[in-house]
Amino acid sequence: MSTNEKNRLDEFRQARAEGNDKVLDADHLGIKRFFNLDTNTYKDGALTGKTKELLGLVASAVMRCNDCIDYHLEQCAEAGYKKDEIVDALNVALVVGGSIVIPHMRHAMETLELLQQEGTLETK
Amino acid sequence: MSTNEKNRLDEFRQARAEGNDKVLDADHLGIKRFFNLDTNTYKDGALTGKTKELLGLVASAVMRCNDCIDYHLEQCAEAGYKKDEIVDALNVALVVGGSIVIPHMRHAMETLELLQQEGTLETK
Amino acid sequence: MSTNEKNRLDEFRQARAEGNDKVLDADHLGIKRFFNLDTNTYKDGALTGKTKELLGLVASAVMRCNDCIDYHLEQCAEAGYKKDEIVDALNVALVVGGSIVIPHMRHAMETLELLQQEGTLETK
Amino acid sequence: MSTNEKNRLDEFRQARAEGNDKVLDADHLGIKRFFNLDTNTYKDGALTGKTKELLGLVASAVMRCNDCIDYHLEQCAEAGYKKDEIVDALNVALVVGGSIVIPHMRHAMETLELLQQEGTLETK
Amino acid sequence: MSTNEKNRLDEFRQARAEGNDKVLDADHLGIKRFFNLDTNTYKDGALTGKTKELLGLVASAVMRCNDCIDYHLEQCAEAGYKKDEIVDALNVALVVGGSIVIPHMRHAMETLELLQQEGTLETK
Amino acid sequence: MSTNEKNRLDEFRQARAEGNDKVLDADHLGIKRFFNLDTNTYKDGALTGKTKELLGLVASAVMRCNDCIDYHLEQCAEAGYKKDEIVDALNVALVVGGSIVIPHMRHAMETLELLQQEGTLETK
Repeated sequence: MSTNEKNRLDEFRQARAEGNDKVLDADHLGIKRFFNLDTNTYKDGALTGKTKELLGLVASAVMRCNDCIDYHLEQCAEAGYKKDEIVDALNVALVVGGSIVIPHMRHAMETLELLQQEGTLETK
Repeated sequence: MSTNEKNRLDEFRQARAEGNDKVLDADHLGIKRFFNLDTNTYKDGALTGKTKELLGLVASAVMRCNDCIDYHLEQCAEAGYKKDEIVDALNVALVVGGSIVIPHMRHAMETLELLQQEGTLETK
Repeated sequence: MSTNEKNRLDEFRQARAEGNDKVLDADHLGIKRFFNLDTNTYKDGALTGKTKELLGLVASAVMRCNDCIDYHLEQCAEAGYKKDEIVDALNVALVVGGSIVIPHMRHAMETLELLQQEGTLETK
Repeated sequence: MSTNEKNRLDEFRQARAEGNDKVLDADHLGIKRFFNLDTNTYKDGALTGKTKELLGLVASAVMRCNDCIDYHLEQCAEAGYKKDEIVDALNVALVVGGSIVIPHMRHAMETLELLQQEGTLETK
Repeated sequence: MSTNEKNRLDEFRQARAEGNDKVLDADHLGIKRFFNLDTNTYKDGALTGKTKELLGLVASAVMRCNDCIDYHLEQCAEAGYKKDEIVDALNVALVVGGSIVIPHMRHAMETLELLQQEGTLETK
Repeated sequence: MSTNEKNRLDEFRQARAEGNDKVLDADHLGIKRFFNLDTNTYKDGALTGKTKELLGLVASAVMRCNDCIDYHLEQCAEAGYKKDEIVDALNVALVVGGSIVIPHMRHAMETLELLQQEGTLETK
């Protein structure tokens, strides 16, 4: 994998952070509350935050949003999921969502590789 | 809740079983293999089958398919999830999928009530 | 139009109210906050609540949710939109969303007729 | 199959015709033009109308619209497709669209059975 | 914001114009009629063209199409909407469509910034 | 058309092949079986493989996935469809899926041009 690909994940993180700042700078109370609600959704509740990150990943994959997939892959890796667990979750998304999900499977696998290279995802 | 509502879940089960028979009776190898693949998806793997049922539920909810929601709710109840855990999973679907998911939240809550009444879902 | 059809809208209102009660009775803080956020979305802000009801209608139509369409049609009628304005908005949804929206156009037209019959929607 | 199920297809045809009349009675030029455009789409062109009916069916199935599926199934049967050809087309929709399409496969199979019973679809 | 970002909107405009030319050069009567119908949709009717541009924006946002969002943002800016009105409309899309819309909110905010820089969008 | 655009299709082919390798290297039995099932879907059956490629193209277009569109456009060209037949199929997708499909029509037309330039697609 090239240095260029390594940058793809870093670039996403930076663009995501800057973009979120712009959204919040628009200073709309409803949007701010939605962002706050979104953050709280993945905190421990009746289910652990870790379990809910995996739910967020599968929801993102069947709805075919690469940015959402990348965000939840990183969160899943940080929550301690191993690669084969994440792949098993992505397989659920593939079967529920069909072959139209395959391009996002390719994207997700590349992101997992990047997360492994930087040490965020445990190899085994 | 009326006797009529109780029947809604039983009627779904029967219609689903009969419908699946008709699909398989069409005798198409690709369709049969897909059904087989679908069944295997929720067996224990790197993740437990129990975890994957919850993933299937959330995928069904964000894609807004009541029949799929009912099926996975029943599977989740049988796998041992408690109501508040299922509700916490549905909340992830609500936040990811937005207010367009709300009618399916209403449907899911009614199904959960029916599953409780028949003893499939533990109340607490 | 038959008495039976008249009941379709009343039945929806009752089922929607009962269903929302069940969702809120599940007593999940995130869900309650989402419902509250949803309600506030259509209040006067930089845009009037009236304008935002029309936005909600078109969003519901392109996402093809009959319950959401019925709810926003009623809100639009109560906000004072005339039938031809609502139809003009539905046409935007038809063109953006394509012929797959047509069954929901049929549903919406029947709902508009019911709203006219009960006097919620001004005829002209 | 019960008499009741036989009525499901006839009821759909009547409701569809009445609903389309209501849509056109709204007298919106854009909507009328869209309906006209939609009809013309399935006439012979570079591809035969018969081929395009099958394309319309698969598009309807992956977008998960039962009314659209029923309409195109009838058009496909009248265009001369045999059941196993239609099933082979539905399998493409299943694989592209995933298990979320399965409830619509069940619906389609029942409709095919009704079309066979009334003689619109050739058995073999 | 960098010069590079400024180019993103200009590049989109040029690619869109060239792409539309290619689509129309394919010389398909149905496609030409659809494009004509699409253009007419946003002209004054029972609703003003200005109102319908906002409907088009929200429809594009819940259906998560960045190119469509950029096009309608520009049209909304030219129609005279102020930034806080557009943001209020995008909030409706966010609540209806859920957190999966957030990456498109980030995209939209950047486009709004570009439109402000070039003077198409009034700052207040 | 620039040399740069020519590379867009070649780059896609390479990225697609490498990405699929990564997906299969994850060594998940369910995913491998899905990929195998997907490949078999487009082989001759009750319908010819050629017909099913066109179904796959239209399904990809209404679901708005550029990578899937590019893949099926290439398969359709190799199966012997002429440009005006492919355009007629894309028109079905446009009418079913609406104006939200237009950006994907633009993308598809550019891909068709690239396929013509390299001789994969017959001009007439």
